[in-house]
Amino acid sequence: MSHLERLFELLAIPSISARPEHRADLLRAAQWLAQRLAELGFASRVDPTEGHPIVFAHRSGAPGAPRVLIYGHYDVQPPDPLELWRHPPFEPTLEGGRIYARGASDDKGQLYAHIAAIEELGQPSPELIFLIEGEEEISSPHLRGYLEAHREELAHDVLIISDGAMWAPGVPALTYGLRGLVYLEAEVQGAQSDLHSGVFGGAAPNPLQEMARLIALLKDERGKILIPGFYDRVRPLNPEERAQLQSLEVDPQAFARSIGASALPGEEGFGLLERLWARPTLDVHGIWGGYQGEGAKTVIPARGGFKFSMRLVPDQEPLEIAEQTEAYLKERLAPGYQLRLQRHGFGRPVLLNPKTQVFQKAVQALESAWGRAPVLTREGGSIPVVADFQELFQSQILLMGLGLPDDQLHAPNEKFELVNFEKGIQASRALLKSLLV
Amino acid sequence: MSHLERLFELLAIPSISARPEHRADLLRAAQWLAQRLAELGFASRVDPTEGHPIVFAHRSGAPGAPRVLIYGHYDVQPPDPLELWRHPPFEPTLEGGRIYARGASDDKGQLYAHIAAIEELGQPSPELIFLIEGEEEISSPHLRGYLEAHREELAHDVLIISDGAMWAPGVPALTYGLRGLVYLEAEVQGAQSDLHSGVFGGAAPNPLQEMARLIALLKDERGKILIPGFYDRVRPLNPEERAQLQSLEVDPQAFARSIGASALPGEEGFGLLERLWARPTLDVHGIWGGYQGEGAKTVIPARGGFKFSMRLVPDQEPLEIAEQTEAYLKERLAPGYQLRLQRHGFGRPVLLNPKTQVFQKAVQALESAWGRAPVLTREGGSIPVVADFQELFQSQILLMGLGLPDDQLHAPNEKFELVNFEKGIQASRALLKSLLV
Repeated sequence: MSHLERLFELLAIPSISARPEHRADLLRAAQWLAQRLAELGFASRVDPTEGHPIVFAHRSGAPGAPRVLIYGHYDVQPPDPLELWRHPPFEPTLEGGRIYARGASDDKGQLYAHIAAIEELGQPSPELIFLIEGEEEISSPHLRGYLEAHREELAHDVLIISDGAMWAPGVPALTYGLRGLVYLEAEVQGAQSDLHSGVFGGAAPNPLQEMARLIALLKDERGKILIPGFYDRVRPLNPEERAQLQSLEVDPQAFARSIGASALPGEEGFGLLERLWARPTLDVHGIWGGYQGEGAKTVIPARGGFKFSMRLVPDQEPLEIAEQTEAYLKERLAPGYQLRLQRHGFGRPVLLNPKTQVFQKAVQALESAWGRAPVLTREGGSIPVVADFQELFQSQILLMGLGLPDDQLHAPNEKFELVNFEKGIQASRALLKSLLV
Repeated sequence: MSHLERLFELLAIPSISARPEHRADLLRAAQWLAQRLAELGFASRVDPTEGHPIVFAHRSGAPGAPRVLIYGHYDVQPPDPLELWRHPPFEPTLEGGRIYARGASDDKGQLYAHIAAIEELGQPSPELIFLIEGEEEISSPHLRGYLEAHREELAHDVLIISDGAMWAPGVPALTYGLRGLVYLEAEVQGAQSDLHSGVFGGAAPNPLQEMARLIALLKDERGKILIPGFYDRVRPLNPEERAQLQSLEVDPQAFARSIGASALPGEEGFGLLERLWARPTLDVHGIWGGYQGEGAKTVIPARGGFKFSMRLVPDQEPLEIAEQTEAYLKERLAPGYQLRLQRHGFGRPVLLNPKTQVFQKAVQALESAWGRAPVLTREGGSIPVVADFQELFQSQILLMGLGLPDDQLHAPNEKFELVNFEKGIQASRALLKSLLV
């Protein structure tokens, strides 16, 4: 069986962690991975958690070689809206050199590149540990506890994570910074039940309008977040980094075209890359309330809600930001409304040191596969677990994303380029080999 | 069969005009009414329209008696959210002296009171015409055309409409004013497809936030609508009306308690009744976009939408208000977004003269049933067709609502008090009799 055929097997499992009805599929994906790793000589287990299980696998290495931990996740985002997919999201399809499937790039494809590399490498190899979770897309609620409980088994020197993006087609990247995350949900209630807008309009509270007002109070028209204290701990770029960002700067108009937008609203006074990597942001992810059906219904709904998150940068503290945000919303809530807040997940921002020896070996491995040195990047996304690893293990972390920025992560028609799957295998194999000496 | 049993038959038909899948149910309700009226000696028909059919029925009257047209509607609002109903919405239930069902008060129960009255009255009676539409809850798109096409058949001297509320339990009302309506829907688009908020957050347009900003721009914190020109044609109350409103003024705190709200946001500087009857308003009825499921999804959605309407007062013009609103939203739209607007329905505001002889007969008929004179009221709701009748027929219009303000129109657990059904029959019978002389 080819690497690609095996990957397709994994991609066909709808392991959507946000949907309780897919619990059995998550277990199935975990078992599939444990089985695959066992075939490659690993001692592998599927460890239950209070949520979805964690795959742990270990294989001894050549004497004196470093211990390498590879982290990945087998869970995926919900695929809706389904009608926008060119192929069903869990029927992986190779078309025009692209693997289309939910999870193709995030993260099953990138994870599987390392498994394939280990299969190709054979022995000798470094001592290898796999840690593959099933709750990354729902903010990893049980991973931190697992890391703490299995601290000895998980001890390692080098951590490899491929759950991100290259710089561009043909241009690999090594990431030395990630944004953090605070994800919140708000529900606003007005009257006790839905009311007729003719009879009550002009006197009854309208929670949808109050909700809109609160959302509008979160950011001003120049993209500045208005929560008091929000920017207090933001570390500005140092001159070296600023120069590097400027050397990479992309054309905002081309970027806008690439996402089909006519303009890029964003925080005024900062370049595009700085906004994406080194500035915190706030986005509303979902909103609902009242009548969403066809036609006209003249109702004043009793309640509505919205989900939103903030991406954080060093040295913002997720808990502090959550508290500031909640206090701000509560304080600005108008009379006549109730506000209920829920926390969905936190992640600390991360900054790594790109000047270590292991980091340089990763640079060379990527160069050997793609024929050019990787660009050193920060990333706008969050892998909250990286902050936990950093704190608990003090290992060398390598963030080598194999996806592309247009891989449609979290969106319909997610894809992974076959060429990046293949070169990712090559790079991983070269890296593991170089870590032997 | 009792009047109540017959009404239950009608209430059991889920004639939800906003839902295309209920088309057959609407036809069934229309046929039921035509059949019922035929049994009472009417020449009745179910006239097709491009939407749901209209029931027309005619019965000759005593020589010299006026021609009386009774208007009602057999369609109902969607019943969702279903889980909040104490009984299924289309299984009418009598409990504690209340008829629970979708449409019990709006408008099947109120309409059927007149049919029952005619059955009781027998002969002699005025010449009677029934015009019962099936699209009132979706803004009567085909009624105006029908009225124009059947102007001769529909010619009448007195128009009776019972599709509103009494003043309070035991206190009937005659309504001499109705607000108008402009109902719009907006969709805001940002990027071409959904995006990952980590990768794109800080640069990509977020249509949910833009939508919230636009909604927040529609009204200020004091409840004033900010659309330029919106208030230009609003006719202030004359001193006599203002004094009458003050004599009726309800306690805002009691009103807030009655809807389970902790306070009543509303336009500053106006009394509660003036806000409900004589001031225009704006309410958002529904909002949607992005991820509405359980848990966390870090998506920047490509689009979102909302439905909203404005209630108008004399002498605001619906078309003008719609144009002002659309222009305002388009002008305030930020770069990077597209806005699509849809019009769902218009209705002119209405003011009637309460000093005519027919109006006084209605006062007496209501008094004979309830043992006290009706309060003269305006209403916050809209019956757009009233403006059309006014323009086309110049007849005497009587708006005698038989419901109560807490009948849960358009909300779960809609109900109609049995006592008002019975006294409504009595009042209608007295009125029709008094019109003979």
